[in-house]
Amino acid sequence: MLEHLGSFKRTHYCGEISEKDLGKDVKVAGWVDTTRDHGGVVFIDLRDRTGKVQVVFSPEISKELVEKAKKLRHEYVVAVEGEVRRRPEGTENPKLKTGNYEIYAKKLQILNRSLPLPFPIEDNVKVSEEVRLKYRFLDLRRPKMAENLLFRHRLYRVVREVFNEEGFVEVETPYLTKSTPEGARDFLVPSRIYPGKFYALPQSPQLFKQILMVAGIDRYYQIARCFRDEDLRADRQPEFTQIDFEMSFVAERDVMAVAEKFIRRAYKELLGIEIGEIPVMTYDEAMSRFGTDRPDTRFGLELKEITDIAKQCNFKVFRSVAEKGGIVKALNFKGGAKLSRKEIDELTKFVGVYGAKGLAWIKVLPDGLQSPIVKFFTEGEMNEILKRLEAEVGDILFFVADKPEVVNAALANLRLKLGKMANLIDESKVNILWVVDFPMFEWNEEEERWEALHHPFTSPKEEDIEKLLENPGAVRARAYDMVLNGVEIGGGSIRIHREDVQEKVFKVIGLSEEEAKERFGFLLEALKYGAPPHGGMAFGLDRLCAIMRGEESIRDVIAFPKTQRGQCLLTGAPDTVREEQLDELHIEVKTKEEGD
Amino acid sequence: MLEHLGSFKRTHYCGEISEKDLGKDVKVAGWVDTTRDHGGVVFIDLRDRTGKVQVVFSPEISKELVEKAKKLRHEYVVAVEGEVRRRPEGTENPKLKTGNYEIYAKKLQILNRSLPLPFPIEDNVKVSEEVRLKYRFLDLRRPKMAENLLFRHRLYRVVREVFNEEGFVEVETPYLTKSTPEGARDFLVPSRIYPGKFYALPQSPQLFKQILMVAGIDRYYQIARCFRDEDLRADRQPEFTQIDFEMSFVAERDVMAVAEKFIRRAYKELLGIEIGEIPVMTYDEAMSRFGTDRPDTRFGLELKEITDIAKQCNFKVFRSVAEKGGIVKALNFKGGAKLSRKEIDELTKFVGVYGAKGLAWIKVLPDGLQSPIVKFFTEGEMNEILKRLEAEVGDILFFVADKPEVVNAALANLRLKLGKMANLIDESKVNILWVVDFPMFEWNEEEERWEALHHPFTSPKEEDIEKLLENPGAVRARAYDMVLNGVEIGGGSIRIHREDVQEKVFKVIGLSEEEAKERFGFLLEALKYGAPPHGGMAFGLDRLCAIMRGEESIRDVIAFPKTQRGQCLLTGAPDTVREEQLDELHIEVKTKEEGD
Repeated sequence: MLEHLGSFKRTHYCGEISEKDLGKDVKVAGWVDTTRDHGGVVFIDLRDRTGKVQVVFSPEISKELVEKAKKLRHEYVVAVEGEVRRRPEGTENPKLKTGNYEIYAKKLQILNRSLPLPFPIEDNVKVSEEVRLKYRFLDLRRPKMAENLLFRHRLYRVVREVFNEEGFVEVETPYLTKSTPEGARDFLVPSRIYPGKFYALPQSPQLFKQILMVAGIDRYYQIARCFRDEDLRADRQPEFTQIDFEMSFVAERDVMAVAEKFIRRAYKELLGIEIGEIPVMTYDEAMSRFGTDRPDTRFGLELKEITDIAKQCNFKVFRSVAEKGGIVKALNFKGGAKLSRKEIDELTKFVGVYGAKGLAWIKVLPDGLQSPIVKFFTEGEMNEILKRLEAEVGDILFFVADKPEVVNAALANLRLKLGKMANLIDESKVNILWVVDFPMFEWNEEEERWEALHHPFTSPKEEDIEKLLENPGAVRARAYDMVLNGVEIGGGSIRIHREDVQEKVFKVIGLSEEEAKERFGFLLEALKYGAPPHGGMAFGLDRLCAIMRGEESIRDVIAFPKTQRGQCLLTGAPDTVREEQLDELHIEVKTKEEGD
Repeated sequence: MLEHLGSFKRTHYCGEISEKDLGKDVKVAGWVDTTRDHGGVVFIDLRDRTGKVQVVFSPEISKELVEKAKKLRHEYVVAVEGEVRRRPEGTENPKLKTGNYEIYAKKLQILNRSLPLPFPIEDNVKVSEEVRLKYRFLDLRRPKMAENLLFRHRLYRVVREVFNEEGFVEVETPYLTKSTPEGARDFLVPSRIYPGKFYALPQSPQLFKQILMVAGIDRYYQIARCFRDEDLRADRQPEFTQIDFEMSFVAERDVMAVAEKFIRRAYKELLGIEIGEIPVMTYDEAMSRFGTDRPDTRFGLELKEITDIAKQCNFKVFRSVAEKGGIVKALNFKGGAKLSRKEIDELTKFVGVYGAKGLAWIKVLPDGLQSPIVKFFTEGEMNEILKRLEAEVGDILFFVADKPEVVNAALANLRLKLGKMANLIDESKVNILWVVDFPMFEWNEEEERWEALHHPFTSPKEEDIEKLLENPGAVRARAYDMVLNGVEIGGGSIRIHREDVQEKVFKVIGLSEEEAKERFGFLLEALKYGAPPHGGMAFGLDRLCAIMRGEESIRDVIAFPKTQRGQCLLTGAPDTVREEQLDELHIEVKTKEEGD
C-alpha cells in the first residue's frame, strides 16, 4: 500500500549531506537507486537531482522498518527520516560526494512504485535513442542528462546576466505570425476565424526585432524559439532555440563586443575557461586558407592555391580547369605518405560527395616523388608546388581542381577528415574567431538569380551600396559570424535601415515591387517612419550548449527533442486529429489520389 | 541626403544627462520629438528609450549647423555631439528629468527621415486601437507603451531572480506537440513528413512539467508561451504567456509559499508596495460571501443567504425556488434607496445577462419600507431579513432567487457593478487572497457528464479519493487559486502521481480506457515508473503585468498583440499562403460548398 506524503517536509537534498550534518536528523526523498541486503541490514542508495546518499535500515533501530525496506525495488519513490552518521572506517565510498556518510533511517514512507525499467538509470548505458526518447522521463534521470539540463539552465542565467547588465530589454515576439517564406519552409497554422488563411510559426524573430528598433526599444534580447520545416539534416530540430539580440545606433564592433562578452562569460562561469583575444578573419581569407567560412583553427593542414602554376602546366586536367575560371588547391597531409592505395581511393570517394571529380596526389618518399601526375609537371613547377606546400619526406599532397565552390568544399571536408584521422585536433582547445566581410549575394545556378548569403535585411557595406544594382557579386555585407572549433555558433549583421536600400536589395534578389510589398510591406512601411541604424545577432543555443557539454547531438541538451524525422516519441506527435477539428479549421487532408 | 553613422559612438542616453555632465562633450542619438525656431536658434527635444533632452543649434557655434537643423522634422533620426550646459535661468523645464540642461550641438548627423505621422508620439493620444496596432512601431514609441515593455522586462527579471533563488531549473518544453483537446481548442500544425498528421501548439506545458517531475528535475520553471484557439472573449489572446512552475515532494503550502514569495517580491521591487499576509479563503466561503471564486475583497457589499426564510415565507417566487433546491441571496447597497425606478430596471436587465429571471428589491426609507414584495412577508420574517442584511434607512436591498449558479453569478456581478457605481473600490489597494478547497468536478448539464473544474491531473484530497467513483460531486481538489483584486492571476494544484488515481479520474470525466490511453498514454506510462508526489502552479503573466501597470487591456503590455479577432494588424497575419505550401503539407482549404 502506498503512503501519502502527509506532513513530510524535506530538509536536505540527497547530494547535500555533509560533515556539518553529522548527528543531525534529516529528511530526504528521492528514488531508490540500488538496494543491498547485508546480513539483515538493508542499504539503499537514495538518488535525487543532486546525487546519491546511502540510507541504512538496521534491526537495531526497528525490525519492522527493515521488513518494509526489504520491499523496496529500483526507482521506488520514498521519503526517509533518519540520523546522519559517519560510515564505519573502510566502508566509505570515495566515488560518492556523500560517500563518508550514511543516514540511519528512523522512518520510511513508500510514496510510489516502479515497474522494472526498460534500461538502467546510469550513464553510458547501451540503449537505442528511440527507447531513450520514448522513456524520456527515465532517460533524464541519468546523471549526465540531468546535468545537461542543469547546465542549460545555467547557460540561460549567463545570457540574462550579460544582456541585462548591458541594458538590453527582454521582449517576447509572437509565435503566430505571417508566412514570409525565405530560405526554409514555414510551419503553418490554419486559422479557424479566417477560412483559408494561415498563421506561420516564425523562422526567427528577425523582422520583429527590427520593428522593435524602429519602435525605439534600443536594445532587445530574447531567448526565442524558432521553427523551420527543413529537410532532414543530421542534428537539426524543427524547433530550436536562439539567443537573439538587436541594438540601435551601432556598428559591427558594438554588436561583436556584446557577443564576445557573452561567450567569454559563459565559458568562464560555466567551464572555468578564459577565452583570449578573438581573432577576426575575412571571408576571403577563410575560404582561401580553409575552404570554408567556418574554419576549425585548432589545427593547421591549410589549403594552398596553385591555380597560377596549373594555368601554365602540361597537366591538362589542371590547366583546362584553370583556364575555364576554375581553381586548383592542395593540402599537405604531413606523414601521410604511408597511406595505402585503398585508403587514397576512399578519400577520393569521400571528396566525390562534395562534387570533386578526382583527387590527385603526390607522395614524398625518401627516394623521390610517387604520383600519377608528377610526369606532367616541369621540375621548376614541381619544385614550386613542393615549396608552396612545404613538402617534406613522408608527406602526401592532395589536389582538387574544379569550380571554386567544389574545390573548397572538397578540400575543407578532406582537411577535417584527415585532421581527425591523424588526431591533429586538440579537443581541449576552444578556438573562437569572427568571420567578416562576407559577400552580400551568391548566385543560385538553378534558379538563375542572386540570393542573399545571410538574409535580405543585411546591410551592404556603405561604399558598396552604389554597386548594388550593377554588380551585386562585388557587394560585401556588414555581416559577421562567430565560429567555435569549426562550428558557426552565431551570426548577425548590421541591418538595412533605409527604405531605398532595402528596396534595391529586394530587387537584386528578384522580388518584384508587389512581391516585396506583399511579403515585407510592414517592414518597408516601418522604414519610412524614422528607422534608426541598427544591427544584431543570434546564437544557436542548442548547438552552443551541446559543444560546451561535449555532446555530439543537440538532442542531448534538449529536454524533449524530436527525432530526425520530426517525431516526438514520448507523446507520439505528430498524430491524427479528430475530423471535427479539421472541419473547424476549414481544411481537409488531401488523399493520395487527389494530390501528391 | 542621409548620412551614415560612421564612427559616431553614443556616450549617453538622452534621459541620462545630469549635473555631472555639465561642461562635458556628449554624444546622443534618437528621434526628433519637437523642434522650435526661436529667432534663428533651433531647439529640438531629442528622445530615446530613456526620455528627452533639449538640443540647441546656435549660430554662435555654426551657421551651417543651424541651417541643417532647420531641415529636421518630427521623428527624424539624428546623432548629435555637443556640450552639456545649464539652461539659462527661467528656461528650465521642470516636467523633464533633464530639464535643467541642454546640449549645445557642435555636430549633427541626419541618419533617417520620417513621413508625417498618422498620430503624434504622446500619451493619451486619441487614436483607434486599429491604427495603433497597424503602426505598432510608432505606438511603442509613446512613453507609456515603452514603459510597459520595460516594466514587463523587469517583471521577467523578478520571476527569474525568485525562481533561481529557490532552486528551480528553467527548462524549455516543446511548442510542437500532440493534440490533447481538453477545454479549449488546439491550434494545429500540419506535418509535411507525415501526411494527414498534425502537431498541436500546447495550451500549457502541464503534461511536460509533470513528466519533468517524473524525470527527477525536482523544481522546474519556465516563462512559457501558451496557445488556445478559444472563442473570442474580451481581452484574451490566442497566444499568451504563463509563469509556469512545478515542484516535487511538496504539499499545497510549499507551492503557495513560492508563489507568495514571487508576488511579494514583484510588488515590492517594481512598485514599492508591501503585500501583507495573504489570507486563505475556501471555495465555499468565497461563493457564499461573494458569489464567485475570485472575490474582489477591496470592498464589502457581501452576499447574504436567506434561503431558510424564503422556504417558509408566503412569497411564492422565493418559496418555490427554495423548495426546488434553489437558493435566495441578497445584498445591501448602502445608500441606494435613492435609485430611480429606471435605474433599478437597468440593474434588473443587467442581472438578466447572468440568467436571473428577476431582481427583487426593498428600499429602506425614513417612513418605512418601499417594495413590491414586502407584503408577502410577515413582520418577523422581514425583521430577520433586515437584521441579516444590516439594513438602515437609505439602503436598498436586492434579492435573486434561482439555481445557486445563477444566483451567485448574478449577484457577484451586480456587486461589482454597484461597487464601481458607488466608488466603493479603493483602486490603490492591492488585495490578494488564496481560494482553496475547490470541488474536483462540476456537472456539465449539456453533455451530461462530470468535468474537471481545474484539469483532470489535479489531485483529489487524500480523504476524498475513496469517494471518486461513487460521489464525484463531493470530492474536493487539492487546488489553489491566487486572486488579486477580483482577478484570478494564478492557479495550480497538487497533481495526481498515482496511476490508479489518475485512471479513476479519467473514468469519472467519461474517458474510456482507450481514449485515456490514446490521449494521455504517455502520462499514464510515466506514472508507472516512480512518479514522485508533485504540484505546481502558473501565473498569467500578461494579466498580472497589465494589473500592475494599471492597464485595462493585456494588449497594452504585449509588444505585438493580436486583435480580439486574432489578427496581427502590423504583419497582416493570418494570411493566404501559396498553393505549393499547402500541397507540401498534404492539406487543402475546404470550399464553402464542400463543408461548412
